[in-house]
Formats: sequence, C-alpha cells, structure tokens
Amino acid sequence: MDKIVIAKRSAGYRAIDDHYNPNFKAVGIGSGTTVVYCVERIRQLVEEGKISTKDTVFVPTGFQSKDLILAAGLPMRNIDQFSGKGLDIVFDGADEIDSDLNCIKGGGACQFQEKLVGLSAKKFVIVADESKISQKLGEKHAIPIEIVPPALNKVIADLTEMGADNVVLRNGGKSKAGPVITDNGNFVLDVEFGAIEPGLVNEMHRSIKLLTGVVETGLFSYASEAYIGNYDGGYSILKRGS
Amino acid sequence: MDKIVIAKRSAGYRAIDDHYNPNFKAVGIGSGTTVVYCVERIRQLVEEGKISTKDTVFVPTGFQSKDLILAAGLPMRNIDQFSGKGLDIVFDGADEIDSDLNCIKGGGACQFQEKLVGLSAKKFVIVADESKISQKLGEKHAIPIEIVPPALNKVIADLTEMGADNVVLRNGGKSKAGPVITDNGNFVLDVEFGAIEPGLVNEMHRSIKLLTGVVETGLFSYASEAYIGNYDGGYSILKRGS
Amino acid sequence: MDKIVIAKRSAGYRAIDDHYNPNFKAVGIGSGTTVVYCVERIRQLVEEGKISTKDTVFVPTGFQSKDLILAAGLPMRNIDQFSGKGLDIVFDGADEIDSDLNCIKGGGACQFQEKLVGLSAKKFVIVADESKISQKLGEKHAIPIEIVPPALNKVIADLTEMGADNVVLRNGGKSKAGPVITDNGNFVLDVEFGAIEPGLVNEMHRSIKLLTGVVETGLFSYASEAYIGNYDGGYSILKRGS
Amino acid sequence: MDKIVIAKRSAGYRAIDDHYNPNFKAVGIGSGTTVVYCVERIRQLVEEGKISTKDTVFVPTGFQSKDLILAAGLPMRNIDQFSGKGLDIVFDGADEIDSDLNCIKGGGACQFQEKLVGLSAKKFVIVADESKISQKLGEKHAIPIEIVPPALNKVIADLTEMGADNVVLRNGGKSKAGPVITDNGNFVLDVEFGAIEPGLVNEMHRSIKLLTGVVETGLFSYASEAYIGNYDGGYSILKRGS
Repeated sequence: MDKIVIAKRSAGYRAIDDHYNPNFKAVGIGSGTTVVYCVERIRQLVEEGKISTKDTVFVPTGFQSKDLILAAGLPMRNIDQFSGKGLDIVFDGADEIDSDLNCIKGGGACQFQEKLVGLSAKKFVIVADESKISQKLGEKHAIPIEIVPPALNKVIADLTEMGADNVVLRNGGKSKAGPVITDNGNFVLDVEFGAIEPGLVNEMHRSIKLLTGVVETGLFSYASEAYIGNYDGGYSILKRGS
Repeated sequence: MDKIVIAKRSAGYRAIDDHYNPNFKAVGIGSGTTVVYCVERIRQLVEEGKISTKDTVFVPTGFQSKDLILAAGLPMRNIDQFSGKGLDIVFDGADEIDSDLNCIKGGGACQFQEKLVGLSAKKFVIVADESKISQKLGEKHAIPIEIVPPALNKVIADLTEMGADNVVLRNGGKSKAGPVITDNGNFVLDVEFGAIEPGLVNEMHRSIKLLTGVVETGLFSYASEAYIGNYDGGYSILKRGS
Repeated sequence: MDKIVIAKRSAGYRAIDDHYNPNFKAVGIGSGTTVVYCVERIRQLVEEGKISTKDTVFVPTGFQSKDLILAAGLPMRNIDQFSGKGLDIVFDGADEIDSDLNCIKGGGACQFQEKLVGLSAKKFVIVADESKISQKLGEKHAIPIEIVPPALNKVIADLTEMGADNVVLRNGGKSKAGPVITDNGNFVLDVEFGAIEPGLVNEMHRSIKLLTGVVETGLFSYASEAYIGNYDGGYSILKRGS
Repeated sequence: MDKIVIAKRSAGYRAIDDHYNPNFKAVGIGSGTTVVYCVERIRQLVEEGKISTKDTVFVPTGFQSKDLILAAGLPMRNIDQFSGKGLDIVFDGADEIDSDLNCIKGGGACQFQEKLVGLSAKKFVIVADESKISQKLGEKHAIPIEIVPPALNKVIADLTEMGADNVVLRNGGKSKAGPVITDNGNFVLDVEFGAIEPGLVNEMHRSIKLLTGVVETGLFSYASEAYIGNYDGGYSILKRGS
C-alpha cells in the first residue's frame, strides 16, 4: 500500500477512534484526502455495529464531502440549517499546519464554507499526513483568498501594498477557461507573504479580511487538535498550546 | 416644485459646480435620488459648451447609475477596469450622515460596489438632502450588511452577541418572494445597534466586517465633503474635521 | 374573516383533504398565499393525530415555502436530493390559470425552482382563489421570464421580434436599487403577448425557452387539477381535459 | 516551430486578412488557442500602419479573450452594451467541427457567452487547426451543457432518457474541489450521444435546450465560414452549404 495512503489512514482512523461519540447530534465532514478515511472509519464502526448514526446528521463543507457523506449512506444536512455552535465536532484536512496549529486551507477553493462549518462546531480536529507540517505557514503554500470579482484589481493592489511577494488569480486549468469561480460565485487569489510567525497569523488574517472585496481568507486559527499520519503508519497528536 | 426636489437639486448642482473638472479622466457616479441632479448638471454644462467629456469616462456604482450615465449619453466604463486610486472623484448619495461625515449606505443593497468605487477615488463627495443628517448614525437607519447566504444563521447569532437590538433579513417585497439577492448573489441584513458615536463608527465597521460570512458593511468613513441641500433651496457644505 | 382568506383557505384545506396521503415519501410545497393553508391543514391533521409525517419529507420551491415548512415543524429536504419523479405530489399556487389548467407563475421570481419541483412530482395540484381564473393566460398577468444578465438586450430584442407588446426588466422596488436578482443570480423580464389561446401556451413556452439567454419561462402546462376557492367559502375543482 | 502553432497561426492570420475591415465598429474575439493568432495579426496590421482600430471596439467572449484584448492594447467593450446584430463579425475557435460547419464549443465552460456574442454578430468565422475536423460531431468530443445547479439530478435523468451514453458533471480538477462553476454561477455536464448526423445537430440542440434546468448547449450551428490551419502551414476554407 502507498505510504501516503498509510499515513492518511492512520491519522483519519485514529481521530475518529479518539473523538467520535455516537451521541453526537451533528458532525462536520471537511474536505481533502485524509477526511476520506474518517468517513471510512465511521462507516466501518457502523457496519460492525459498534456505533449507530441513527440520531446523527453529517454536515459537508462542500461538494466533495457532500458526495463522500452520501456515498457512505450517512444522513446529510446543510450548514445553513444550524446556528451558533450547533455542530458537536468537525473533522477537516489542511494544506499546511504550523507549530501552533494554525492552518492554511483553500487549495480546493472551499475555505469559506470550511471556515463556516469549522466555526459552527464545538471542536475542530485536523487530520493530515506529515507532509503538511511546517514551522511557519507560507513555507509551502500560498494563502487562498476569496474575493468578489469586481474588486480584483483593487485587492491585488491592496495586498501588494501590504507586502505580498506574489499574488495570482487562480486559473481554472483544463476544466475552465479563465479564473476559478467558487461555489459562492467569487474569485480566488493565491497570495504569498513569505513565512508567517505563528503568533502573527491571526493578525495577518484580520488585515486581509478587512480589505473591501475580501470575503474570506484561508488562514485558520482555531483547531484544538491535529492528527498527523506518518509514512511509517504511525501518527502524532498535536494540541494547541502544548 | 416639490421642496425635496429643490433640496436635492441644490446639493447636486452645487457639488458639480464646485468640484467638476473637465480634465478628470474618470468620474464615479453613485446611487440615490440626489446623484440624478449631479448627472443632470454635468449634461447641462456639456450642452452649454462649458465643459467637454471627450476625455472622461463615468463609472457607475450599480445598475441605477449605469442607466443614469447611459441615458445622459455619457461614456461609461466599469469599475473592474481600474486599480488603485484610478478615479479622480466620486459623487454619491447616503442614507444617513453624522456630524463627522460618517455615512450609512445600502438602502438599495448596492453598498459593496458603492464602497469599491468610493475607495478607488481620490475624493469622495456626498450629495444629499437635509433629511439625511443625524447627530449619530443609527438614529434613523439600520445598517445594511451584505452576507454570503449559507452564513445567515451564524451572522445573525454573531451580531446579536455583539449587542444588536434587531437583525432583519431584507425581503424582496412585491418584486421577489423571499430575501433580496444582491448583484453579487448575496443576502442583506438590516441591523440596528442604536445610535453610534461618530468616533466609534469605524470600529463598529471593523468588528462586523471581521465576522465570517460578512462581505461588506454599509458604514462609510472616508467622505471628504458633503453637500446638503435644504428645503428652502439653500445648501450647506460639511467638511471632515471641520 | 376576509373573503379572500375564506376563499384561499377553502381551496387549500380541500386540496389536502382530497389528496394528502400519509404514505407519501416526499411532498412539494409551493409558493404563494394559498399554499399557506395547505400547510396549515397538514399541521392540523398531524396535531389531531389523523396523519403522521414520520416518513415524509417536505420539499420547498423557494425561501418562502422553506420558512413555511420549518415554521410548521415539518421535516424539510431540498429538491437537489431527488431525481426523476421522486416527489409524490406538489401543492402550488399560480398567478393566472386558464380553462385548460395552463398557468402563469413567477410573480415572486421563483418560477425556475417551482417548475423544477413541479416536474419532479407525480402529481401537480394547483390551489388558488377565484381571482386567478382567466379564459386565456395573459389577460391579467405578464409572463415572467428568467434570463442570464449579459443577454438582457438580446432577449428583449428577440421577444420584441416575436411580437411582444411590452417587455419590462423587473425592478427591485424599495428593497433593491436596479433589477431583481433571482435565487439563481439572474434577471426577470415581465413580458406581455396579449391573451394566449390555451392550445398555444406550450408552443409559446417552447419558443421563448429556445432563445439563447432564457433560463426558464413562467408558463406551466402540466397541472392535473386545480382547487379554486370562492369568496363565498365554496370551491370548485378543475381537471385537465374535462 | 511547433507544427500545431504553424497550423493555428496559418488559420488565424488568413481569417483576419480575408475578413478584417477597418470600418468595423465592433469585433467579437472568441476563446481558444487559435484566436490568439487573430489578435496577433490585428495588432501587427495596426503596428505596420495598415489598419487603424480608432473607431473599433473589441468584444470578448470570456475572461481569456478579455485578457487577450487588453494585452494587445485594443479597446474593449462588454457584450451587454450591444443589442441585435450589433457586432460586425466574430472570430472564434471550436472544439470540434463537422462537414456542415456545425461545432461543439464549451471545453472552457464559456459556451454561453460565446453563443451570445456569436448570435450578436452579422458574421461568425471559425478558426481552428485540422485536428478539430470530424465527419460528425461527437466523434471526438462530448457536448458541454450549462445547467442550473439544483437541476443536476433532473437533467442527468432527462439526458439519459433521451439516449445519452454518458453524462459527467465536469470537475474542477486541481484548481477547485467539486464541480466547475461557470461565470454565470452554473454547472457543466459533458454529455455523449455518439456521432450526430450533421442534419440533426440543430434538433439535438433544441431538445436539450428545452429541458428545464438547461441554460445553454455547446452545439453551434450558425458559422458561415471556417479557416482550418494544416500542420504543413497551409489552410483550407470551409463554407456552409458548399
């Protein structure tokens, strides 16, 4: 078996085993390739009769996790039917994770709904493989920022003035000529600011979010734990503030 | 002639007479019923041969001002073709104006593009009739806030926690069942926080803009001058910091 | 009690009494002021213990009916989770109904989702008060047509060439400056073609739907029955082909 | 030089040389890799002083051609400012072309705006390399169909019932998790019906366009000429009905 699959499965299964509670009313299911193993594990436990999902609904962060939930035969409900901290927990992936459990998300252009679901949950658990760990965010990934289309030029100018090294309008590649359009009808800018000190991530998020034209940033600062799968099949658990 | 028309015309004409410069490359034309008289005055001056718009383009803040520009036979260009402070000036209306020239805008659900155009201009001039003046914002008007639809419940909860007295999802009235949809495909919340001290308007804007799900607020804090038309045909000019 | 309320209630209650079956898996709930009484009646029957909605989900045609369903405490599911004729029945209103049970819908700009829900149901039952009946469609109402915004000028020209007497871009009124935006992000044209022979309604629909830029028309031709409430509290039942 | 570049350049240059007229008021610029050479040729002719674009505006069919026009320093105007046959000519690419000059377009998910621009022009000229020629449409390409998202399941069922061999919701690939979203906020289905007789293409388009949920198909039937570049540097001109 592929060592990356081993790592992802290790993290995904363990996060479920440690945190899943059949009394949960609502469980957020995030995006990415590791979350697939969280759902696989939930389904296994159901089939083995160890848990029931009779009283639980699953809440997707986008089309990918919607398909995942439906394919596993789990009951789904959309995030717009919840308010406050209406979800018990969310399991979600990340594109890059720093030593304080700050993350960059949005490689799939779904960071808005991922953040909305994340902020609606009492607990936010990251699952990822070890390639996603950095000392500082920005070492490996640009920050995806969702913007309202007519503000494109303005936000590029604003980010450049803030010191961005590079700002790229994300392109649709082979699937779509021109820019990617998000599920909210917006554009995505991938922005590089160099490596960001963990203590400054939230301030960076705030400065960007305050710009007129910005809908949401891909900087996340509220995970409580991260399950990191290793290529040798092991895993480590990172906790905020530890 | 109707006294409100007299007041609006008085403000609109005078703002143009004081500020319009035929060397302008790009002029923003805002929304509302007073801006109509700015455009009427520009057209008069063109017809009388006093100014030329040969080298000037006009930039609308929404569909209403787009129609206004085209009906006046003026050359139009969209805001997405500008960057930085690419507009020389913007003339725009307001729903409520306080003693520091802070404004509430968004009665027409266009505050996003109005702010985008306003922030792209070297100078922002408000034109309005005297009924729009308050000691403090919030005395007469709720604050319109544009939000991404799936975040509806979350943002209502956030605003309530911040102390809002009343939060209403704006309804489409006779024209549309269910909520108003903005030109960006979003919802509008009309939010009341009571009267807001002029010195706290910008902080209020920032707190709201930082909420996940909020695209833009209707609080504006960067007008340099306001032309206020009176019912007796006179007008007054308010300047920031005076 | 208001005679219009009497008429609407009479139609709404009777349609439910004649057609509602507790074995239904999925029931569409449409828009308009008469459907309110369908939901009121379902709720009454549940409270009186005469029916159970334990195995039934209710599918809205827009925000208004979504609120209606949730306020009645009924389980809701969105139309995008169904396929084929997945709904057992739909109860929906109409703006105008001709002698062949053709209807005009879309006064609330929701005709696209109303048609989508209607076509997904095995049976489509109209409920309305007697003011909605005409010999021919177009006597009382314009036809609402949803269009993609950049095609505005083209579709207006096409409809005029087809013989339209009047084509109006629907305006947002007090709630929104400029045009109404639908839940799909589109515009609505209200088009008058004079009175339309019942036998030509479907052909008219097809000619309009084929225009590049048109998403959906407000002409509906597949109701099987209509419950028409009278101001005296009575009602009549119209059946297609009778 | 790459033989594909040679072919595309040959077609693009010759189409301009044969058809471009400096008196044109408005010229549509389409999508694809061959149109690039149309714009390159226009720019060459301007630089050599052979034509002037002083009185001409260029109208893009999407973001790609918008960038192309702006990068060439040509004056741009959006399609929503035209009506009727307001463009003199359009030069556009195609994904597949049959012996009657029917085309499949929409590989870049822009077929709606491409069709809107094409139908607004007095003449529609295709430019492509020889790899795009088929006896019948459907031999090489699926048909891209733009649909309103909530109608996904219904349209898939309708197309299958019409005899489609394969219906795929186009995915965003690496750039976007989940489905591609078009510039109009919609989905794209790539549909295979086998090879389509040239005489039946328009009927196929009509059957699909009439489905509730379909915004536009990628079947085009109104080109008057096609410039086909060969790998040896030559080209051929196909004319409708010849």
